[in-house]
Amino acid sequence: MNDTLSLLMNHRSIRKFKDTPVTEEQLRTIVSAAQMASTSSNVQAYTVIAATDPELKKRLAELAGNQAYVEQCPVFLVWCADLYRLKQVTAEPLRGRESHEDSTENFIVATVDAALAAQNAAIAAESLGLGIVYIGGVRNRIAELSELLGLPELVYPVFGMCVGVPDHQPGQRPRLPLPSVLHHNGYSKEQSVAPVQEYDATMAAYLKERTGGKQDTPWSQVMANRLGEPTRLHMKAFLDAKGFMKK
Amino acid sequence: MNDTLSLLMNHRSIRKFKDTPVTEEQLRTIVSAAQMASTSSNVQAYTVIAATDPELKKRLAELAGNQAYVEQCPVFLVWCADLYRLKQVTAEPLRGRESHEDSTENFIVATVDAALAAQNAAIAAESLGLGIVYIGGVRNRIAELSELLGLPELVYPVFGMCVGVPDHQPGQRPRLPLPSVLHHNGYSKEQSVAPVQEYDATMAAYLKERTGGKQDTPWSQVMANRLGEPTRLHMKAFLDAKGFMKK
Repeated sequence: MNDTLSLLMNHRSIRKFKDTPVTEEQLRTIVSAAQMASTSSNVQAYTVIAATDPELKKRLAELAGNQAYVEQCPVFLVWCADLYRLKQVTAEPLRGRESHEDSTENFIVATVDAALAAQNAAIAAESLGLGIVYIGGVRNRIAELSELLGLPELVYPVFGMCVGVPDHQPGQRPRLPLPSVLHHNGYSKEQSVAPVQEYDATMAAYLKERTGGKQDTPWSQVMANRLGEPTRLHMKAFLDAKGFMKK
Repeated sequence: MNDTLSLLMNHRSIRKFKDTPVTEEQLRTIVSAAQMASTSSNVQAYTVIAATDPELKKRLAELAGNQAYVEQCPVFLVWCADLYRLKQVTAEPLRGRESHEDSTENFIVATVDAALAAQNAAIAAESLGLGIVYIGGVRNRIAELSELLGLPELVYPVFGMCVGVPDHQPGQRPRLPLPSVLHHNGYSKEQSVAPVQEYDATMAAYLKERTGGKQDTPWSQVMANRLGEPTRLHMKAFLDAKGFMKK
């Protein structure tokens, strides 16, 4: 196994960081690597905001569900899907012609662009000995968070990412059996669902060991609790208000 | 610079492949690495379909805008956002309780999950000496393509990815100046847009060199042509029909 594969296979989400700062040079390296990810037709429809100001991180941590590591990490990155830049720079060449930044297609393009760039950043950070964790909590109180960061129309925070020097070495959560996610020459409903029974047992055993016997919920039950929860149902209205997915 | 950073910084999209096959072992390594990417609350809301059957690749190439490399590459991966698996395995534990797989939030979760996994796969493939190119064209005739692959409700193809041994070494397209995409402690409209003037000149010069003087369109003009084009306006209705983003 080559070094890059080892690094990918050893990923863990880090939620406890040393006080060591992330230097501006490291940050620039990480985001430069992010920029080299593929981007749909070179639109580069994303912006990343590095929060290093302690007061700002504190407020972001509150808005993201009081996750302490958002405040504790030296740099909190907010990855935004950004069609604002495109809209601005194309206004003059389009000269009033109809424009489609508000399509569902372009919403997907911008969201995917942000995610591909962020994953490159995550790997770049890990290759430098740093650790990361993605924070979906930036979508909890997304309107307040967007206002706090001054996000204009056609920009939304897809997720956050804590970056810093790891101060713990968490276990690695098992993943679904490969056949569940890798299909050949067509989708197989059976293959997608059947391996979950085995995975339920794997995850129950994993949880039991991690919690000293306190928890052993099978994965499908955890997922049921999650899917049954009315989580972030404000997203549709919020995105609409920001100018996304009008058509 | 470490090997992983070098690999990230040297990414190029590959559109010409040697006949050499991608082995099943390589494929399994690539998708196993994909599985180690972060996933929102461990939902793993994606499935990847490996198309290796020549007739199937031929048809997929037609549906994806007649891009020859979709047919020529030994393996064409179709990365799907997948909430079908979750819906199925949670039906019994939820016992008819309301469920929210149809929220815009969960659409974003699944789309991002697929993208993070795919980018890990891209890097894993490149670390093995393979090359890749993302194919947004799977969304061109998305209903036909979904039917061809047998994608059930709550599954959609986010993008494709050609994988194979590179048979050319294309140039590397310059990216936006770093300050345009990396902001500090808040979004700056000025910083987002102003560097585009410099980038327009960079891209015009790059295109001119690449095309032997035939093309020198500035980036913002290319983007205007793209944004002015009514591209894939079927996405909203298609996703609705597949059960996504009902709320």
